[in-house]
Amino acid sequence: MNKQRVTVLGAGSWGTALALVLGDNGHDVRLWGHRREHIDQINQTRMNEKYLPNVSLPDTVIGYSSLEKALENVNMIVMAVPTKAIREVTKEIQAFLQEPVTIVHVSKGIEPNTLKRISEMIEEEMEARLLDHVVVLSGPSHAEEVSLRHPTTVTVSSKDMSAAEVVQDLFMNQHFRVYTNPDVIGVEIGGALKNIIALAAGLSDGLGYGDNAKAALITRGLAEIARLGTQMGANPLTFSGLTGIGDLIVTCTSVHSRNWRAGNMLGKGQNLDEVLENMGMVVEGVRTTKAAFQLAEKYKVNMPITTALHSILFDKVNPKDAVDSLMARMKTQEMEDLVNILDAKMQEQ
Amino acid sequence: MNKQRVTVLGAGSWGTALALVLGDNGHDVRLWGHRREHIDQINQTRMNEKYLPNVSLPDTVIGYSSLEKALENVNMIVMAVPTKAIREVTKEIQAFLQEPVTIVHVSKGIEPNTLKRISEMIEEEMEARLLDHVVVLSGPSHAEEVSLRHPTTVTVSSKDMSAAEVVQDLFMNQHFRVYTNPDVIGVEIGGALKNIIALAAGLSDGLGYGDNAKAALITRGLAEIARLGTQMGANPLTFSGLTGIGDLIVTCTSVHSRNWRAGNMLGKGQNLDEVLENMGMVVEGVRTTKAAFQLAEKYKVNMPITTALHSILFDKVNPKDAVDSLMARMKTQEMEDLVNILDAKMQEQ
Repeated sequence: MNKQRVTVLGAGSWGTALALVLGDNGHDVRLWGHRREHIDQINQTRMNEKYLPNVSLPDTVIGYSSLEKALENVNMIVMAVPTKAIREVTKEIQAFLQEPVTIVHVSKGIEPNTLKRISEMIEEEMEARLLDHVVVLSGPSHAEEVSLRHPTTVTVSSKDMSAAEVVQDLFMNQHFRVYTNPDVIGVEIGGALKNIIALAAGLSDGLGYGDNAKAALITRGLAEIARLGTQMGANPLTFSGLTGIGDLIVTCTSVHSRNWRAGNMLGKGQNLDEVLENMGMVVEGVRTTKAAFQLAEKYKVNMPITTALHSILFDKVNPKDAVDSLMARMKTQEMEDLVNILDAKMQEQ
Repeated sequence: MNKQRVTVLGAGSWGTALALVLGDNGHDVRLWGHRREHIDQINQTRMNEKYLPNVSLPDTVIGYSSLEKALENVNMIVMAVPTKAIREVTKEIQAFLQEPVTIVHVSKGIEPNTLKRISEMIEEEMEARLLDHVVVLSGPSHAEEVSLRHPTTVTVSSKDMSAAEVVQDLFMNQHFRVYTNPDVIGVEIGGALKNIIALAAGLSDGLGYGDNAKAALITRGLAEIARLGTQMGANPLTFSGLTGIGDLIVTCTSVHSRNWRAGNMLGKGQNLDEVLENMGMVVEGVRTTKAAFQLAEKYKVNMPITTALHSILFDKVNPKDAVDSLMARMKTQEMEDLVNILDAKMQEQ
């Protein structure tokens, strides 16, 4: 692929790691963050010491703290900000665009109350004449490992597959393998809801319940995500792919994962306020639990793990009681709800 | 459930942990092992010091080294022996049976060359008049955690679901949850083939490739198991359940797993003979790789991970070269083969 100019919005660990991949591929990368000192530090030391320590960035990556300068003559934007900031950032950038842009979002969440996915929020906030395409990039990918050039696979998806293929070419290299999948809803729902199961897995580990219990939670968690996603119009098979089970595994079994760590602290007896204060970083799974709980009601889907977690987070139910009753309540015919998913899919065809 | 007399054949870690569950449920449990000293040690100390140290067995569990005495007046047998020993043990017990028995097998393998599943081997070796039912019990279940009464979920399956339900009642308790699934082929294939992916995951970890690569291997591994299983007559959804993805996760992400450990040593540069000598225990995944490679040829199914592992184990291909080319060769349209699975299933209906 020819050299492109790409702006990455958000200089956290994931934005920085993706800037590094694009920089490795020879593109001109502008890494924007809103704190001037942080960006100065990146440009001076060639490292993001706060969020991705000990990794040198390629010379092709330059930090920007001015949004206007970062966006000058750009038509490809990678948006790596928390779900909570998506609408605000989307609004803000429009004044600085000279031509229609493709936005690649890499965030994982659902907005509570509106129940919108991230690509929907971007489409709502952006003037149509300035928006070429929205593409989502998701999959099992710890930023730290990506920055060390460890083998990583992700999926890109868009309503327009030719846009997804352009993004595939942009990021693809020997270490960072990019696949396409036309199912935007499934890719976004899987990425968002896995954080709920990661919280639950951390909680189970915090209670000292071990790998057998965690594997059961992950398996049943995947089933309830697939149940909801299918009702929302996703292809159930997407949840068996990289952005479904793949991302779920990496988030639930790694101490790198902040959602797992937050769940772990809850399981060890801290309350939600203490956990969020101790983390000092966004824990997407907490807001996503609220949104998924609302989605389950709206679509009339049975989501026992989400419901149990919601009761722990927002109704102060004791974690041990909630997890124990969850284990006891599971169906005895495990195929029942899996078969229901397939039946629903077949009726569509 | 009323008190039953149950014989567990095999005093390894899994046989002993299952004997403990049955003992907790108040059944009379006879735990048979072929080495007299080992059994004497179990009866004297009330612990299986060699395979399940530091766990006291309930008084309801008694060790036997005489097969004849262990089987006297029994009609329920749990067979917990390596795949390699299934035919021999099945032959041997028949002389001592007074009435038809139900055999619950808990082993995970496929026989190379004949390509038989374990229930098929038992049915072949056993006189029909002595065999009531064969039931398979499988799922994400480290023996150590089961013996500590950590929450665990497993699945039982049989051609006759009423037999599976009897076994469900026999084992079910507060910590050990048992589900039923009518798909015997899917349960046995998933349990056997996950050991191949565990070897590959250990190998990737041994090469220092990290969690992103491992999650990709597990995800793609599940897809190739489902592809083969579906061709063999399994329900593809079984691979999304406890005996599929659940067992795969626990085996691939835990240092308890001997298949993962064997793969890890391979990744660190030991050859197969050294690994097997260092393990000193059966590594089912090695023989299963041979059998699955043959199954892939027989059913004309594309199994890139199995093929790569086969080339490492039996053709001395360098592990790093094999894994790197595996990552590079994966399809770029990840939905392609998932969709093929669903299509195959739909054509059946």
